[in-house]
Amino acid sequence: MSKFRKISIIGLGLIASSICLTIRQKDPAIQIVGYDNDKEVRNRAKKIGLCEIERSIEDSVSGAELIILCVPVGQMQAVIRKLKKFIKPGTVITDVGSVKLSVIEDIVSHIEDVKGIFVPSHPIAGTEKSGPEAGYAGLFEGRWCILTPTKKTNKKALKSVEAFWKHLGMKTKIMTPEHHDLVLAVTSHAPHLIAYTMVGVVDDLEAVTKSEIINYSAAGFRDFTRIAASDPVMWRDIFLNNQDAHLEVLGRFTEELFSLQRAIRKKDGEYLLKYFKRTRSIRKGIVAAGQDTGTPNFGRD
Amino acid sequence: MSKFRKISIIGLGLIASSICLTIRQKDPAIQIVGYDNDKEVRNRAKKIGLCEIERSIEDSVSGAELIILCVPVGQMQAVIRKLKKFIKPGTVITDVGSVKLSVIEDIVSHIEDVKGIFVPSHPIAGTEKSGPEAGYAGLFEGRWCILTPTKKTNKKALKSVEAFWKHLGMKTKIMTPEHHDLVLAVTSHAPHLIAYTMVGVVDDLEAVTKSEIINYSAAGFRDFTRIAASDPVMWRDIFLNNQDAHLEVLGRFTEELFSLQRAIRKKDGEYLLKYFKRTRSIRKGIVAAGQDTGTPNFGRD
Repeated sequence: MSKFRKISIIGLGLIASSICLTIRQKDPAIQIVGYDNDKEVRNRAKKIGLCEIERSIEDSVSGAELIILCVPVGQMQAVIRKLKKFIKPGTVITDVGSVKLSVIEDIVSHIEDVKGIFVPSHPIAGTEKSGPEAGYAGLFEGRWCILTPTKKTNKKALKSVEAFWKHLGMKTKIMTPEHHDLVLAVTSHAPHLIAYTMVGVVDDLEAVTKSEIINYSAAGFRDFTRIAASDPVMWRDIFLNNQDAHLEVLGRFTEELFSLQRAIRKKDGEYLLKYFKRTRSIRKGIVAAGQDTGTPNFGRD
Repeated sequence: MSKFRKISIIGLGLIASSICLTIRQKDPAIQIVGYDNDKEVRNRAKKIGLCEIERSIEDSVSGAELIILCVPVGQMQAVIRKLKKFIKPGTVITDVGSVKLSVIEDIVSHIEDVKGIFVPSHPIAGTEKSGPEAGYAGLFEGRWCILTPTKKTNKKALKSVEAFWKHLGMKTKIMTPEHHDLVLAVTSHAPHLIAYTMVGVVDDLEAVTKSEIINYSAAGFRDFTRIAASDPVMWRDIFLNNQDAHLEVLGRFTEELFSLQRAIRKKDGEYLLKYFKRTRSIRKGIVAAGQDTGTPNFGRD
């Protein structure tokens, strides 16, 4: 059971709505109040009965024991500026941002004076869908949540936020914000950028029609389009806020790609075969770790 | 109903075994004889009762009305050299290679003198699995098969091979081998190479442990590992045999990637947002065309 009996959620997208639905399933006595800056999003959330919806950010956090910031990372600072005067001392605050260093900087500088206790966290779960209708109970089940406390983070608050994510079905891991940002750059951010790029290339090719792309995308490309269909604002903000790690990973990526391109040009089959064999083992590890299903095509067919 | 009552399949991997199982489901009276150069693969196919298995390529094609070549594209020439003296005039031959120009060149130069009638085809279907145990009935259902006849291709044979793939549940499309190779370079080959590259980069990063990669790959990277787990020999051969189209597409890809990398470095959020919004529409087209499911994560969760 979570110790938080009243929770406020700011920003009503996929993660927020999945939190609502999961809490309602696991611990229906918890009171959830939601707020979104966008009136239309608030109305949609209300229409599907997601949680109590307030029309002002002030009302949405009144009496909350935990505030969860579910806005794109580029909006964290603006939200905390608005919020800070309504946060009661002792209220625990967490976020779900995919970048941690910049979010910590944006938030901590504003809430130190109001004694809000901030615990940075990143539940690694999601789909290519967005909006309040996209959520579902079970999104977090068995997935990892990384918590990135700083030296100033209150130990008790950290424990309670960690317990909260575990209560939603997640496994948790503590690491530094710097390391988190590098790990996510390789496992999530760079793959997204690359998928966006490939989809952009295809969109630009005059010799291949759009219907050809759509019809013959079964083999490989459709996975890229799924990744590249994710929320554009969220991703823009991620790329603007984890620059160093991204440029490092992209530099390595280009280097590797050029080595394979060279092997194609030189018809170096041995190099290609060795490379392709090596990449199989990582896949096996992921399936074994239960982060994906071993059935072909994720069991889609 | 297919006009071919006895079919020979050379090379017993994912596609071959899926053809067997689909035929057995749709038209059990058709006789199927299989052969693989690798004794161990033959034994595995025999063990699961895939089809009749012959120990010599000669016996496997005896009396066949249709021969389907399901070997990696780099082995087509060697197979047809072995086969040519056993092919009876009028036997129809097709293949399932992902590259068409080089396969046509490899095969046509050897079978012209034996009056074998070659119809190049490419059923676009597959998973990351390989081997005779990987196949399943239904792999081809609703997917596209591209046929790439040349001026010399016998019209009647073309019609009968087209009817065969339709009989397995596929939609068919005729195009030139040149155009096929470009379309597949963008929709399949380049995405695969890029996925291989990204998985290679991650494997090389000393600062991130293998278990971190495995645990936190939920968001994006696991799709790359799926693609990069495909049969290494098949992919080596594809990259060695469609060089021009690949180098063209990779050149464009690098150009685009650099433009996004520059936008990250310059913190040009407007450029990134515009780019990411554009890529969403292709995804919608693919879901609407029925080449993928619209449920989040392909309905995996």
